[in-house]
Amino acid sequence: MKTLSVHVAPQPYQIFIGRDCFTNTIAQLKKIAKEDRLFILTNTKIKKLYQKRINEVFSTVFKVHWLIIPDGEQFKNLSTCEKILLQLSKKEATRDSLLIAFGGGVVGDIGGFVAATYMRGIGYVQMPTTLLAQVDSSVGGKTGVDLPTGKNLVGAFYQPKAVFIDIDFLNTLPKREFLCGMAEVIKYGVIWDASFFSFLQKNVHKILNLDPRSLAFMINRCLEIKAHVVGEDEKESSLRAILNYGHTLGHAIEALKNFTGIKHGEAVAIGMVYAAKLADTLQYTKTPMQTRLTDLLCQYGLPVKWPKYAKKDYVTVMKRDKKSTKTAIKFIMPIQIGEVKIVPLPVEEILQCL
Amino acid sequence: MKTLSVHVAPQPYQIFIGRDCFTNTIAQLKKIAKEDRLFILTNTKIKKLYQKRINEVFSTVFKVHWLIIPDGEQFKNLSTCEKILLQLSKKEATRDSLLIAFGGGVVGDIGGFVAATYMRGIGYVQMPTTLLAQVDSSVGGKTGVDLPTGKNLVGAFYQPKAVFIDIDFLNTLPKREFLCGMAEVIKYGVIWDASFFSFLQKNVHKILNLDPRSLAFMINRCLEIKAHVVGEDEKESSLRAILNYGHTLGHAIEALKNFTGIKHGEAVAIGMVYAAKLADTLQYTKTPMQTRLTDLLCQYGLPVKWPKYAKKDYVTVMKRDKKSTKTAIKFIMPIQIGEVKIVPLPVEEILQCL
Repeated sequence: MKTLSVHVAPQPYQIFIGRDCFTNTIAQLKKIAKEDRLFILTNTKIKKLYQKRINEVFSTVFKVHWLIIPDGEQFKNLSTCEKILLQLSKKEATRDSLLIAFGGGVVGDIGGFVAATYMRGIGYVQMPTTLLAQVDSSVGGKTGVDLPTGKNLVGAFYQPKAVFIDIDFLNTLPKREFLCGMAEVIKYGVIWDASFFSFLQKNVHKILNLDPRSLAFMINRCLEIKAHVVGEDEKESSLRAILNYGHTLGHAIEALKNFTGIKHGEAVAIGMVYAAKLADTLQYTKTPMQTRLTDLLCQYGLPVKWPKYAKKDYVTVMKRDKKSTKTAIKFIMPIQIGEVKIVPLPVEEILQCL
Repeated sequence: MKTLSVHVAPQPYQIFIGRDCFTNTIAQLKKIAKEDRLFILTNTKIKKLYQKRINEVFSTVFKVHWLIIPDGEQFKNLSTCEKILLQLSKKEATRDSLLIAFGGGVVGDIGGFVAATYMRGIGYVQMPTTLLAQVDSSVGGKTGVDLPTGKNLVGAFYQPKAVFIDIDFLNTLPKREFLCGMAEVIKYGVIWDASFFSFLQKNVHKILNLDPRSLAFMINRCLEIKAHVVGEDEKESSLRAILNYGHTLGHAIEALKNFTGIKHGEAVAIGMVYAAKLADTLQYTKTPMQTRLTDLLCQYGLPVKWPKYAKKDYVTVMKRDKKSTKTAIKFIMPIQIGEVKIVPLPVEEILQCL
C-alpha cells in the first residue's frame, strides 16, 4: 500500500492507498485500537456487500459491533446521529473505543461527527467506499450533518486516526456515483494542477473503464493535493477554502432541489462551470475557460447546466452558506486551469450570470 | 470588574467577575463581536426576569435575537439543539455571529455545544446566572447534552470567547439552586485548598445570606482553581479529571433517578461523601474525613445519603460513565482536605461501600 501523511496538530495521520484493504489494514488497526473491539458504522447496502469478508478477516483479531444507518443523504441528520450515539452508549463504548466509518460520504460525515461528539471525542478511522469519499470527504476532518435549511450546517473539525483507501471498492460502485466522484477529481485539476487536468483529458477511456493503474495514480494525486492543503490550513481560515471551488452554486442547487434528484458531485460540476462563466465574464480568467472545463465534464458524463430558479430563491439559500458573512461570500474564482483565487463577493454579484 | 485568564490554546480567554454585568460587558462584547448583532440563548424563566434590562442596555449597540429553550435538564438533549441550530440558520447567522449563553448549566452546556457545531464552530460567550454555572460549568469549554442512557454523553471541548460572572444574578436564584452550587464550591476545597475549606466552614452564615464580599471572594477562588486546572489540562488527559471528584457516584444516582427529584449539585454532594467513605475504608485518607465533609455539607443544607438501589443497577449506569474504560473507572480518591488522587478502580470495587 502507498502511504501519504496529513500534517495536522496535535496528531498527524496517514492515508493508505491500495487494494485488498481488509487484510492490509489489520496490522495498522491493531496499532491504532486501544480495545479488542471495533464499532463499524455503515449503511444497509454496504453491509450486505462486505459483511462476510469483514467478519472473516477482522473477527480473527477484533470483536466487531455493527452500527447500521439507512442508505441516502436524507438520513444525514442529527436524528440519525442520536440513534447511533445511543447505540454506542448501550453497547458500553468508552473513550478508548474506535469507530470505523465504512461507506460513502454520508457514512463518513456522520461517523466523523458521532466520533467527534461521543463522550466529547473518540478515535475513528475512515474507510471510504465511493470515489467521492476517497478523493475528498474522507480526508481533512470535516464532519457534519445537514439541516432542513442546508447541507453540512452542523458539524465539527475532527481528524481521523487513519484513512484506508481501497480502489477495488470502486468495482461495486454504481456508475453515476463514480461520475460524481470525477467532478471532485476534476476540481483538483482546476484549483491546483494543470498537468493533472490534462491527464484527465487524455485518459477518459481508461478511467471510465476503471483501469487500476490510472485510478491509483488519479486518487493518489487528488489526495496529495488535499493532504497538502489541509496540512497548511486545517480549519479553513484561508487556503483550504479553495477546495470549495464550484460548491457555492452547487450547494445552492442541492438546497433548492431539496437534496433530491441531483447528487452532490453533479451539483459541484454545474457550480464549477458557473464559476468559470462568472470568471470569464468578470475577466478574472487569463484566457476564457468555461468551454474547456465544460468539455471535460461532459466527457465524464456530468451535467453542466444550472436549473432555472428565481434569483431571489438562489439568494435565500446562498445566504445560509457557511462561507457567507452578512455582506459577502468567499467565492472561489478560477484564474486559469490550475489556479484559483478567493474573492469576497456579495451574493447578488455572484448570481449575475444566471 | 475583577479579571482572570484561562490559558488554553489557540486562544486564551478572560473571566470577568463583578456586578451590573450588562452595563459592564458592553465594551468587551463590542471587542469580541464581529457583527452588530447578538444571539442570546436563554430559557423562558430567565428571559422573563432580564429581558427588559437586556433590551435597554444591549439594544443601544446590538440587534438582539432571542433563542429560547424551556427550563429544565430534561430539555438538555440533541432535539433541543437541533431546534436552536435551525433557528440560527433561519435567522441567517454566519460564522462571524456571536452567541451568548445566558442562564444556568443547561443553557451553558447547550449554548456551548450549539456554538461548537453550528457551521463547525462560531464564537460564544458564557453569562452564567446560577452559582453552579458560575463556579463550574461556564469555564473550561466542556459543552454537551444528555442521552437517555446518561448525562453529558454527547458534546465537545469548545472554549468560550469570554465568561461574564455577575454575583447579583444570585439574588434571583432559588435557594435550592444556590445550595447545589455550594456542593461544587465545597468540592474545590476538598480537591485543592484546605484553607478555602476552612473559609467555607467559618462563613456559613454570611454565604447563606448572600453577603456580596463573601460571595465575590468565594467565586473568585473557585474560578482561580478551575482556570488553573483547565489551563494545565484542557482536554482532561490527566489533572483535569480531579474536577470530577464526587461525580462518579453522583452521575450514577442522577441516571438511576432518571434525572428527576434530585439536582446535580445534590447528587455530587452525596457522591463526595461516598468517595470519602470509600477512601476512609480503603485507608487512602491520612485521617478519616467522611465526618468532617458530611458536617460541612449538612451546614449548607445538602443531602449526604445515597439512595438504595441494587448494586447491579449502579454497575450498569456506571459502566456508561465517560471516565470508564472496559476494565476500570478513573476514580477521584480524597487523601486529605485539599488533596485528591486519580485511582483507576473496577466498578465493583468502587461500589463496595454502598
